[in-house]
Amino acid sequence: MDLAGDLLAGDVRALARAISLAEDRDPQAAALVARLQGHLGHAHLVGLTGPPGSGKSTLADGLVRVVRAQDRTVAVLAVDPSSPFTGGAVLGDRVRMSRHTLDSGVFIRSMGARGHLGGLAPATREAIHLLDASGRDLVLVETVGVGQSEMEISTICDTTVLVMMPESGDAVQSIKAGIMEIADVFVVNKSDLGGAERTRRLVQDALALARKPGWQPPVILTSAAREDGLDRLWEAIRKHRDHLAESGELRSRRLRRVKQEIVALVAERARKEAESVLEGDSAVARKLAGQNGPVNPYALAGEVLAQVARDGGPG
Amino acid sequence: MDLAGDLLAGDVRALARAISLAEDRDPQAAALVARLQGHLGHAHLVGLTGPPGSGKSTLADGLVRVVRAQDRTVAVLAVDPSSPFTGGAVLGDRVRMSRHTLDSGVFIRSMGARGHLGGLAPATREAIHLLDASGRDLVLVETVGVGQSEMEISTICDTTVLVMMPESGDAVQSIKAGIMEIADVFVVNKSDLGGAERTRRLVQDALALARKPGWQPPVILTSAAREDGLDRLWEAIRKHRDHLAESGELRSRRLRRVKQEIVALVAERARKEAESVLEGDSAVARKLAGQNGPVNPYALAGEVLAQVARDGGPG
Repeated sequence: MDLAGDLLAGDVRALARAISLAEDRDPQAAALVARLQGHLGHAHLVGLTGPPGSGKSTLADGLVRVVRAQDRTVAVLAVDPSSPFTGGAVLGDRVRMSRHTLDSGVFIRSMGARGHLGGLAPATREAIHLLDASGRDLVLVETVGVGQSEMEISTICDTTVLVMMPESGDAVQSIKAGIMEIADVFVVNKSDLGGAERTRRLVQDALALARKPGWQPPVILTSAAREDGLDRLWEAIRKHRDHLAESGELRSRRLRRVKQEIVALVAERARKEAESVLEGDSAVARKLAGQNGPVNPYALAGEVLAQVARDGGPG
Repeated sequence: MDLAGDLLAGDVRALARAISLAEDRDPQAAALVARLQGHLGHAHLVGLTGPPGSGKSTLADGLVRVVRAQDRTVAVLAVDPSSPFTGGAVLGDRVRMSRHTLDSGVFIRSMGARGHLGGLAPATREAIHLLDASGRDLVLVETVGVGQSEMEISTICDTTVLVMMPESGDAVQSIKAGIMEIADVFVVNKSDLGGAERTRRLVQDALALARKPGWQPPVILTSAAREDGLDRLWEAIRKHRDHLAESGELRSRRLRRVKQEIVALVAERARKEAESVLEGDSAVARKLAGQNGPVNPYALAGEVLAQVARDGGPG
């Protein structure tokens, strides 16, 4: 069985299996992505983030419909960095997407944190590479707006869409927290609720104050549940992609992204090697086992890093 | 000014300043902790976690009162790994604690993620060391139950307390997700709401099924708002600490913890070094700048790790 070949041929089961390998942090996934390097860079990577309850999943669902009507293929990657406590809600959201299950032009996949500490980003990046290599035109990465995920998503996508609700206070929070700087397109969803236009203007004014040269992020009103504003949203997303390509920013963003990916891979590898040094029969492990009372973790971290260096090397 | 000396003497401003250094990832904080090694290990480190709305802050507040009545000193470290979106709520919670502000036996501090990706754990660990060194008898680490924080908290504390609400579905979710394995004491808070006793039995039954030798985690009913059950909870926490000391588990937990701390420090250092390699004038950076089209991040990560190894070494 040739996983790379099947994946390139668009085989959905091969794709699903490859993503599972990435999620399990199986080195086969890395080897696969390395083999597929020549097939990367086609997909438009769009991140969709925002607080719980802002309607991201319904919006993703709507975007899928708009994009499919234009005969483009799409993948939705729902990343849930949150705890098992909220797992149920995300699962519930996924059920909404089930109307697309008979359409082979739509691939939907949820990824969880699986208890990896800080290990989600490399898995997510690998999954995005795999979806890209499989020839999808659009890869929508949807993430629950908790934790550092909305910051993180902007570092792995071409276009970041921030979804807000009218009058929810999120808009104000976002402005304060500087989160506005990371979004390329703003959405005030649930526009059928009161205060949507007021919230839109609030965000627009904040953007005008922080105005920078280049791309001017639009603020789009949508009601995903009523299928309203979705064409406008898709148009804004497409325009941003065109802007990236024409301005040369696509290349600089992707260079920055590959640097961040390398940094994440180095940290992940160092972490794994450090674990095996400490669990194995190393000098540091023996020192720790024999100690009575507190030790200096900083000095020992230096010793372990040196050891990782000796063992790890390139490869 | 001697920060270490002032901190050991119990100076609260010195403590606050030292924690800020840790939060900023200033190397001075690491140097300080290294200097204070001989003064660590006194405090009982208790982690308090659970979903938003379960009443953790009110419970922490109540525990502080119980502990202060016994003339023990206490520090509360409220760690918020969540996004700017929920920052407001946490701030609101903190106001509750203000009734203790005139009591020098109580030190309260919030720590945020500050946009560090995966960088909270080293800062939190350093802050805990600093609180421990300052002579506090009890260090309560309260964390919002989102993200991987409730898994993480069990790796940095002696005793982990999981707070649930009656009939909230959290109990069932926790059982499913295996999160029960990481808690030493279970709390069903808001016992004045209906279904508390039923939830308590549900958790108890699940614990009985997964029964292991050694410590049997109790399930305590509390109503923090009505100041009910707090003495029982404190008694359970103290008993767990006694169990750890008598069984020798305190030593093995702390050994495991220092290993995890070293791994986190190695990963953090590797990440930082990798960033400077890629931003600097290294061979890899030049290769990236000159590339056209996709590159293989895995191979480059290997090169960067080798470089980190050469540059970093012990220190």
